[in-house]
Amino acid sequence: MMDIQTLAQQILASDRKALAQAITLIESSLPIHRLKAEELLGVLPHSQDTVRIGISGIPGVGKSTFISQLGSWLLSKKKARKIAVLTVDPSSPLEGGSILADKLRMQELARHPDVFIRPSPNLGTLGGLARGTRESIQVLEAAGFETIFVETVGVGQSEVHVASLVDAFVLLQMPSTGDEWQTLKKGILELADLIVVNKADGELKQEALRMKKMLELSFSYHEEGFHPAVLTCSSLENEGVGNIGEQVEHFIARQKSNHQFLERRKMQNQFWFEEELVWCLKEEMGHNPHVKKLIDPLRNKVRKGSLGISAAARRAVELLLH
Amino acid sequence: MMDIQTLAQQILASDRKALAQAITLIESSLPIHRLKAEELLGVLPHSQDTVRIGISGIPGVGKSTFISQLGSWLLSKKKARKIAVLTVDPSSPLEGGSILADKLRMQELARHPDVFIRPSPNLGTLGGLARGTRESIQVLEAAGFETIFVETVGVGQSEVHVASLVDAFVLLQMPSTGDEWQTLKKGILELADLIVVNKADGELKQEALRMKKMLELSFSYHEEGFHPAVLTCSSLENEGVGNIGEQVEHFIARQKSNHQFLERRKMQNQFWFEEELVWCLKEEMGHNPHVKKLIDPLRNKVRKGSLGISAAARRAVELLLH
Repeated sequence: MMDIQTLAQQILASDRKALAQAITLIESSLPIHRLKAEELLGVLPHSQDTVRIGISGIPGVGKSTFISQLGSWLLSKKKARKIAVLTVDPSSPLEGGSILADKLRMQELARHPDVFIRPSPNLGTLGGLARGTRESIQVLEAAGFETIFVETVGVGQSEVHVASLVDAFVLLQMPSTGDEWQTLKKGILELADLIVVNKADGELKQEALRMKKMLELSFSYHEEGFHPAVLTCSSLENEGVGNIGEQVEHFIARQKSNHQFLERRKMQNQFWFEEELVWCLKEEMGHNPHVKKLIDPLRNKVRKGSLGISAAARRAVELLLH
Repeated sequence: MMDIQTLAQQILASDRKALAQAITLIESSLPIHRLKAEELLGVLPHSQDTVRIGISGIPGVGKSTFISQLGSWLLSKKKARKIAVLTVDPSSPLEGGSILADKLRMQELARHPDVFIRPSPNLGTLGGLARGTRESIQVLEAAGFETIFVETVGVGQSEVHVASLVDAFVLLQMPSTGDEWQTLKKGILELADLIVVNKADGELKQEALRMKKMLELSFSYHEEGFHPAVLTCSSLENEGVGNIGEQVEHFIARQKSNHQFLERRKMQNQFWFEEELVWCLKEEMGHNPHVKKLIDPLRNKVRKGSLGISAAARRAVELLLH
């Protein structure tokens, strides 16, 4: 078993092999590895001078190409020195094609010596994925990666998790004012700090501009509170990416001047603590003999249907906590 | 405040006003209503001679029309006597159009005197929605509705919840062998007891048949275990609906002869008990002063970043349970 102090030193020296080793440790579900991972995270510093950018959108909207171009722009303009890309993808496609395709789309960025790309691990649950990503962010930041992209597929719960991991959440949208418009979730739009209508090129350009207007209009109905900026972009023609980079920069600067930047990270820490606590409690309910002895009789009654689920849960909480 | 014994009697007599009143009570989050709801559920019988059918699929696949046609077929063939339809939709569309459109699509079924349709309540969380649906099912079954459809949008976590509420889970698919095929989630396919490729009409008919073959082929790679049947259907031309009704009937009959039918319901009860227990524990962590006193110091350290999230959660569990 590796020595944690040595590993931490290597990470601080930005040793790539140590980084990969640490992330593998973090992703392991073995209890002994979990303890080692916690030990490692306990000795690594928490960097605050970093920027975490979430990128979400439905499959096919062009997330990987967008990240590759935005990352290259940040590096070329010296707006970032070292960039890491993590992906959170709770789906397991029938064909393994999508991960390979993602890597191809990020080829340009991946070739850069100051870029670290790590695909989504196979952790089964979304909770496990989010924890792996959160802890990997800490390791990468300790190693000097000051700009972290977290990419996620825009289907379901994973955006909520990713939005709770980043300083700026960018939602990529297809240009569409037709049927798909109806399926836009208000909840997801509300997570966005910046909305980008991608594929604003060729025959879709007009539709992209119309969609931008419609989104802006829909936000204008809500007089109060924060309205995300809506921008258009063409990854294909590499147009608009620089503008988006600057908008993200402005957003972060405003968050810092409002003291919202650190406040958001604090709230995220608290959110993840509550989530993690619930997972640990679930674990105990399944495996801890003392806990099982208390709640198994209720479980059995519920299984048979002789006790209502809600009533049984209330009784179990009384037994567990009082 | 209504008398629970009287309400229960009216429900057993299938009084529609009492049904609506009971479901409103179930959907209330007021603690006093929760207790009343638990009291009601405690006195109502748990029917076992009922069939719960989940219907899932992406927006636009034709779920409402399909349910309307399948429901009408079941009634006309005397395969069902009384039908209820519940919807679980965690999304809140920008425009309120979708619920209205759903009702229009189910108009034919809704006009039938032995049909009860209840749209998704605004309960905020998916957990709350699932509980509302689960408890509404018990009330409707006690009132003699022996066939219950639970409709859900096929985006994200809601299918998992609905699959855990029903005896047969039917997944509706668009005919597509192109791009969208890639976004088919293996996890969702694995929930399905029956897969229906809808819109098998006009120029999509050939593509629907190709998709059926591809799905069957993909299942044939897994030699062991249960393979869901794949059927095609045209809600537009009302073709194939009867065949699907018969397949659902066969599936249920096989489940009963294998003793899987009641076993599945028992496992679902246990699953929901664990979920409900976790929600109750979360509630306590937020509001119970005794619990807050124990974990608030950890919360504060986590917020500031002076204690790791995973380590803090482990410590909190020790404090809470030991």
